[in-house]
Amino acid sequence: MWFSCISSTLRKKTGSNRKLDDSSTSAARERPRPAKVPGCCGSAAMRAVIQRVTKASVTVGEEQVSSIGRGLCVLLGISVDDTQKDAEYMVRKILNLRLFEDESGRSWSQSVMDGNLEVLCVSQFTLQCILKGNKPDFHAAMPAELAQPFYNSILEDMRSAYKPELVKDGKFGAKMQVHIQNDGPVTVELTSPSSPTDPKQMAKQEKQQQRKEKTRAKGPTESGREKGSQRSRQDPSASSGAEGDVSSEREP
Amino acid sequence: MWFSCISSTLRKKTGSNRKLDDSSTSAARERPRPAKVPGCCGSAAMRAVIQRVTKASVTVGEEQVSSIGRGLCVLLGISVDDTQKDAEYMVRKILNLRLFEDESGRSWSQSVMDGNLEVLCVSQFTLQCILKGNKPDFHAAMPAELAQPFYNSILEDMRSAYKPELVKDGKFGAKMQVHIQNDGPVTVELTSPSSPTDPKQMAKQEKQQQRKEKTRAKGPTESGREKGSQRSRQDPSASSGAEGDVSSEREP
Repeated sequence: MWFSCISSTLRKKTGSNRKLDDSSTSAARERPRPAKVPGCCGSAAMRAVIQRVTKASVTVGEEQVSSIGRGLCVLLGISVDDTQKDAEYMVRKILNLRLFEDESGRSWSQSVMDGNLEVLCVSQFTLQCILKGNKPDFHAAMPAELAQPFYNSILEDMRSAYKPELVKDGKFGAKMQVHIQNDGPVTVELTSPSSPTDPKQMAKQEKQQQRKEKTRAKGPTESGREKGSQRSRQDPSASSGAEGDVSSEREP
Repeated sequence: MWFSCISSTLRKKTGSNRKLDDSSTSAARERPRPAKVPGCCGSAAMRAVIQRVTKASVTVGEEQVSSIGRGLCVLLGISVDDTQKDAEYMVRKILNLRLFEDESGRSWSQSVMDGNLEVLCVSQFTLQCILKGNKPDFHAAMPAELAQPFYNSILEDMRSAYKPELVKDGKFGAKMQVHIQNDGPVTVELTSPSSPTDPKQMAKQEKQQQRKEKTRAKGPTESGREKGSQRSRQDPSASSGAEGDVSSEREP
């Protein structure tokens, strides 16, 4: 681990010596979060860059350590403030995001799970960069010795929620070459919900979301889809009926 | 252009029919921006996912339309609200971000320009996604017929600011395969500064930044570097002397 040597220094600075279990969640959540910095997406939250791929693989030196076919390549950046809640959110979103077309060619309608596709998840602390002028600063990233077990637990969660054999990873802390064949291209940035200004509201939203996903998990029935689109239409911020058209035609 | 058909619908919805010259800047800036949505990085701003690459290329069907060696692969998402100011910020940051090591192996010390490296820039409207549950919505993306000339002008700006032959692109609006060999991996998300709550402050920051970059452009002299690191140390939000250590040792 060629950056583990900085972890203890970093931990002293950030004061993060907490366990990643639920007991630490509220304490971590109550800590003031840094303001959003222009430049890199700077507020402390878990971040993922998700690329839809035709195939992807990881090599370390000459050795190929991992490879997937069609699916998602996820670069995952864990911040010092992240907790199990952020992890759960990320896993759920990665597995349920509708970035694939269905059998009839309708875009943005299937998730990686719907299509029985693969996930290659690679730890990427540089997503936690804050720019100091033009120099990236990574103090917002969780130190490696804490991030590694946390990252492993996220992978385990993803494997449990999906199929273990379809979730691959890189080699934490190693210098890797990540070969990505971005299909489209389709790239989405994902951020775990930041500071819950209203925890009650947040819990409510989470529950709603989980209920929705349970309904979907029962099968992508027409009635389920209908309900989804109705919700969208009732949403005053949604752009009414044309949403489906836009989504499906604007497959890049 | 296989999504141009939706542009007029989109324009009617978003009301964006403005030119991308300076006269539109203030008007665009005054429009209320959507609040940050948990999930995708949802506030309207120009977004880039920058991957440091050993090599990268773009194919459309069987044809390779572009390829670079060592450098940066930039996926660029333009929002309905973006103006020339956002473009200038992005071009400056992409070209000056220090994501490469110098000759002595010191990480995070050279920009793509310092190393005479290449840039592959590919338009990527999906970075402007807002999640409606698990379905991506792209109404925050600038419609293709406006985005294409804007995107071309950004490329031209980048070529003028650097070397035209070292800045490549994909094929706007085409279904591409973007082959990315992410080196490290090193991935950074970049967001143009959003709603300028204090335009004066913002203008001041921009000027400071430009001055700094001019100084650097004269050559990466030791004295320039020294000044930079001093500034960083004086910055109360910076984490003092160890920053250099962290940056250089935490090369992934």
